[in-house]
Amino acid sequence: MRVDLAAADRRALVSATVLTDAVATILEACDVLAGDARLAADCLVEADLRGVESHGVSNLLAVYVQGIRDRHINPRPDVRVVRERPGSATLDGDGGLGGVVAVGAMDLAIDKAREVGVGVVVVNNSRHLGMAAYHAMRALDHGMIGVCSTACGPRVLPTFGAEPRLGTNPIAVAAPAGRRDAFVFDAATTTVAMNKIRLAQRDGTTLPGGVIADARGIPIMTPTEVPDGFQMLHLGATYDLGSHKGYGLAAAVDILGTVLSGSRLLGEVGTGFNNHTLIAMDIEAFTDLAGFEASMDRYLDWLNECAPAPGEERVLYAGQPEAEIRTVRSVEGIPVRLEVLDELEALGREVGAEVELTMSAGA
Amino acid sequence: MRVDLAAADRRALVSATVLTDAVATILEACDVLAGDARLAADCLVEADLRGVESHGVSNLLAVYVQGIRDRHINPRPDVRVVRERPGSATLDGDGGLGGVVAVGAMDLAIDKAREVGVGVVVVNNSRHLGMAAYHAMRALDHGMIGVCSTACGPRVLPTFGAEPRLGTNPIAVAAPAGRRDAFVFDAATTTVAMNKIRLAQRDGTTLPGGVIADARGIPIMTPTEVPDGFQMLHLGATYDLGSHKGYGLAAAVDILGTVLSGSRLLGEVGTGFNNHTLIAMDIEAFTDLAGFEASMDRYLDWLNECAPAPGEERVLYAGQPEAEIRTVRSVEGIPVRLEVLDELEALGREVGAEVELTMSAGA
Repeated sequence: MRVDLAAADRRALVSATVLTDAVATILEACDVLAGDARLAADCLVEADLRGVESHGVSNLLAVYVQGIRDRHINPRPDVRVVRERPGSATLDGDGGLGGVVAVGAMDLAIDKAREVGVGVVVVNNSRHLGMAAYHAMRALDHGMIGVCSTACGPRVLPTFGAEPRLGTNPIAVAAPAGRRDAFVFDAATTTVAMNKIRLAQRDGTTLPGGVIADARGIPIMTPTEVPDGFQMLHLGATYDLGSHKGYGLAAAVDILGTVLSGSRLLGEVGTGFNNHTLIAMDIEAFTDLAGFEASMDRYLDWLNECAPAPGEERVLYAGQPEAEIRTVRSVEGIPVRLEVLDELEALGREVGAEVELTMSAGA
Repeated sequence: MRVDLAAADRRALVSATVLTDAVATILEACDVLAGDARLAADCLVEADLRGVESHGVSNLLAVYVQGIRDRHINPRPDVRVVRERPGSATLDGDGGLGGVVAVGAMDLAIDKAREVGVGVVVVNNSRHLGMAAYHAMRALDHGMIGVCSTACGPRVLPTFGAEPRLGTNPIAVAAPAGRRDAFVFDAATTTVAMNKIRLAQRDGTTLPGGVIADARGIPIMTPTEVPDGFQMLHLGATYDLGSHKGYGLAAAVDILGTVLSGSRLLGEVGTGFNNHTLIAMDIEAFTDLAGFEASMDRYLDWLNECAPAPGEERVLYAGQPEAEIRTVRSVEGIPVRLEVLDELEALGREVGAEVELTMSAGA
């Protein structure tokens, strides 16, 4: 671990292993079983490795710990199979950490896909599952395509609406390639992530037109500071630009995760509840895996070979920038603000776990 | 059938039955088997019934007939199961009419879902399948959720790109409700449909900013007439507004339909080839169907009850406006321009089919 003093806000480069151990130790101290704590930690640290800080340790661990303390998150859930067929299942997540519950659900979907070609598992009564891509990617090592979506509480305006009705409801799709990094799509069904909006609000910077609506629900179509009471918009921003498409996709995520799993509607319960959908498709059930991987390589090459528009550098595919960041960070370590390391140590002390990060970072 | 003389361009109201018979007769005269011709006709007329003229008779039948004459579309395909497991299958569409091939694929997916809870069927070597929602909706009567997507030839710029790489690649999701009309989402992964752009170009009207790019691939972000060499954009329009999300979804549709089905990449073949993905999920495999339908009713009510933003009338859900139009048109008939009726009769004469529409319309 080494400290990068050049950075504006000082950061230490922390190895994924050290960070995972620290997070797992903290979660174990919150009564999470060792194996589950390690899974949840891996889910958070994998996000940091891939440069998706919004779903990494600094942004989510304290929330999860507080959720356990508030008894909103159950550290030792009894996840039950509510209904099952060879290719499908419904699980009751029993309020467990979503990142752990979703891993179990995806593993069940993978088992089913191995048997019958495809597995679809929906989960009610779960909690925040971290980065949706993490769960979709779990299928990759099995020669499968993975899909993960999760329904969240209402925060986004439907097209023409003035009140939040849908969650940010992300969709992730992961497909393996051969020599190329896997295709890993993961996106909320909103214009941008809430994080970007909150950051602009905090820093007083300007957002492009078409990212948010004002407090009355009218999309702001010119560059704007973030007003009080701003509202989130679905991908597309306005009807003219296709926001009914983002809205419809978000509703589909809700219908699969929430209605199909037999959950109460998320608009009828408090915030912080999540319902997941996990799908695995065994590639060999459809075509030869080797042929699929070779075809994926050609496909991803062909996307990259697209001439960039004037002023742009290159055309990427989903998951490519994250894989490039991961390659660097798995060698050099994950840059973590020293302030965050302090916070993790303080969190450890609060829950009675021994976590020393700043010392080992030499700060 | 009655003629509406008040309309700017004169239209006749044609019953769905009359129109379906005419289309089926024309397709049969093109060597399509009677049952297939009726299916293909139903697929087109259902789009007209739902007000989706872009995928209806006037816009597509002549294209299909020409495709058969050019031997691009095979009127009597030998659709083969290439690979199969209890929950999955890959089909070779043998160049058949996509609307017919996709029905067979969805029916297979439905059979599989009845057995194991879910069925996923991917189809290579097929052609245009009409309105994707038609195929997703086929699951509704079986108490199932249906999904249909189709990969099309490159027409849309990837984010940051100057050359078309992805198709318009629509995604449709249909879920049944109880007393409410079904949720039926169906959208291309572009900002708007090519049709709307071509219409604006023809009429010299203005498109909003964020719908198209110029010939160099730079998104036009202010209201604009449609320039020569315009390019289509993925949902989101620009990276700042999330076009990588529309792009990623389009790629996922391609990976499922094209790569997973073992097809050649659509960028490597000529235009007019399509690869489909059909998914059916048996609701009873996950939860009680009656409970699902009641929950859907509450969910759709709750979306409709959302207060509209200032200046907007009401908040709708996907499929609702189309269902409302269908209710009217299934009683009153489908408004068809007299010119289109003439064209249909001419098309009939060309292929040696007896089709009389204008006479019966009293024009």
